[in-house]
Amino acid sequence: MTPIISNRIEKTRAALAKNDLDGLMVSVQENRFYLSGFTGEDTQFDESAGVLIITPTRLVLATDSRYDLQAKSEAAGYEVVIYKKGLEQELPGIADSLGIRRMGFESARLSHKQYAAFAKALNTVSPPMELVPTENLIENLRKIKSDDEVARTVSALRLAEKAFVQVLDGLRPGLTEKQVAWSMEKAMREAGAQGLSFPVIVASGPNSALPHAIPTDRPLSTGEPILFDWGARLNEYCSDTTRTVVMGQPDDRFRKVFDTVVTARDKATAAIRAGASGMDVDRVARDYIHSSGFVDRFGHSLGHGTGLAVHESPRLSPIKDERLETGMIVTVEPGIYLPGWGGIRMENQVVVAEDGARVLNDPAPFDPILKI
Amino acid sequence: MTPIISNRIEKTRAALAKNDLDGLMVSVQENRFYLSGFTGEDTQFDESAGVLIITPTRLVLATDSRYDLQAKSEAAGYEVVIYKKGLEQELPGIADSLGIRRMGFESARLSHKQYAAFAKALNTVSPPMELVPTENLIENLRKIKSDDEVARTVSALRLAEKAFVQVLDGLRPGLTEKQVAWSMEKAMREAGAQGLSFPVIVASGPNSALPHAIPTDRPLSTGEPILFDWGARLNEYCSDTTRTVVMGQPDDRFRKVFDTVVTARDKATAAIRAGASGMDVDRVARDYIHSSGFVDRFGHSLGHGTGLAVHESPRLSPIKDERLETGMIVTVEPGIYLPGWGGIRMENQVVVAEDGARVLNDPAPFDPILKI
Repeated sequence: MTPIISNRIEKTRAALAKNDLDGLMVSVQENRFYLSGFTGEDTQFDESAGVLIITPTRLVLATDSRYDLQAKSEAAGYEVVIYKKGLEQELPGIADSLGIRRMGFESARLSHKQYAAFAKALNTVSPPMELVPTENLIENLRKIKSDDEVARTVSALRLAEKAFVQVLDGLRPGLTEKQVAWSMEKAMREAGAQGLSFPVIVASGPNSALPHAIPTDRPLSTGEPILFDWGARLNEYCSDTTRTVVMGQPDDRFRKVFDTVVTARDKATAAIRAGASGMDVDRVARDYIHSSGFVDRFGHSLGHGTGLAVHESPRLSPIKDERLETGMIVTVEPGIYLPGWGGIRMENQVVVAEDGARVLNDPAPFDPILKI
Repeated sequence: MTPIISNRIEKTRAALAKNDLDGLMVSVQENRFYLSGFTGEDTQFDESAGVLIITPTRLVLATDSRYDLQAKSEAAGYEVVIYKKGLEQELPGIADSLGIRRMGFESARLSHKQYAAFAKALNTVSPPMELVPTENLIENLRKIKSDDEVARTVSALRLAEKAFVQVLDGLRPGLTEKQVAWSMEKAMREAGAQGLSFPVIVASGPNSALPHAIPTDRPLSTGEPILFDWGARLNEYCSDTTRTVVMGQPDDRFRKVFDTVVTARDKATAAIRAGASGMDVDRVARDYIHSSGFVDRFGHSLGHGTGLAVHESPRLSPIKDERLETGMIVTVEPGIYLPGWGGIRMENQVVVAEDGARVLNDPAPFDPILKI
């Protein structure tokens, strides 16, 4: 077991003690990896590659036979238990053998159906075992990134940025959004990405006014905004970037909107530091966009944490406040969306430090206007 | 709204009446699509593109602003309701406006955390509203495929089969499992697949003895089993096929194992018909493999349903029985796994008919021995 993982387990055990639990069942895929190194993936929402059961003195990874070898080779320090009849049937026996009487579970991941089955099964043991819902125990640890996690994020980001440069080189009017999105994906995968952080967004002209655009067969034209939102996963960590470009000469509006978005992003970034309120940082960008004449044209939150998942805590949100801390990685991604015309969003990833934010993206100046 | 969807809603409403419910909240992504045509995707386990709320007289699609336009253009016949503060806060108002007093929910998809939040919120309305867990209401409808669904599955399968032929053409010793898996993915995506049914498995030599192998950097060699398990998604439906090949002359064991697996598959296929027991069909393959001298070398289930999800009901399982019905699509995928040597699995998709099984795969004879 690496010192990093053993340190995380120590913190998890402290959280157990604080919550008066003598066991925690970890079923969120990213949390399993974070605490064990086991990379088994839940392939559908109703399928699971297993659970960790962490007690003050024991570490168990319970999984099925498909993951036997992988679990043993990846999860150093864990006893691997293979369930044959499904976890629901075997959990009481496992928990009992570990002497657990009050077991925490992750209420965001366990379905109502699984919970009911577990609760029923655990009721049959004597003395009865209690299932206690927990929220964000491990997610709260994951919010603060180690230097190694920051380095992995930067590697994923560099890979994604290089893919973008490569795709921009081949960008031509007439290519469709779908074709360009696929070129981005190919460039990332062939550069060694283990996967995408999320499906690539390429949205052009009026389509770029949809913050959640899905690439279509629309061909790209000159003079209109073309929005890219993409990320690579590398060594388990996610990058997430947005850039908006135009081929050839844009209209006057493009310049005005682009400059407003970039200034909003940079002002918000300058407001980030340990101790700052996420809601305040969001407000810096939002107020600037509104006061520049784009009232109600920035509908989504300013940013979110990234890490093993592409969307995680904390949020930079106008409605829910979270305090920023040193070591958090967040996106800063304001946008202005004008129905019928299009939208511009510019997104960086930054790491929070004592005295400010360090931008993780390539620092070279970015010119959105592509020569054709 | 298409007649196909309106027919499905009619059946859903019959299920509501039977379960004494005056509303059903549908949150499983595939079920949402099945009943509305809405293709919004849940991008993480803790994110949702929305829910359908179906009552005896009303059809509502509740989602957030990101999906507004998409919901309105795809979900014909549905009233689209946009929630701004999250579904948890707005569900009571929506359900109340629909006059719902006993609302079913899908207990396999709703997390314990969401359930607790919904239950609490609904308790505040007067008269109080009851949340009732349901299981498989829509999944049971999805088990039986229409001709259109069978045709979509066959299209996905043909696309995936062509990609395989293309990749076999370029197969050479020295290529790694990862490289070949990526070639398979590229070939499917470039032929128009909207995605993969699941990550491509390419496993060679001893790695093929792992039923759940993940492609590695191991280079392929002549004379050893090379197992491919792959599927394409096209028009929302999934294909799923396994083929095992060898480059050049195999050892004697390959021929014996291969023939045993193919015979087991064909015997099991011949046992399929409406009314047959899934467990009996599984036993036909399992008994043949055991009696051929490979006791305990076939550890997983014989097959599973496919459709909008690649794993769905029914299962052909040695431990849980399900009755087969006309129109079900199932995989038939026996395998023999010999640790240290490798494994051979051969998988077809078939549709169940009154008097037998119709194999959906390309009927051309398959020769596993590739010339080099």
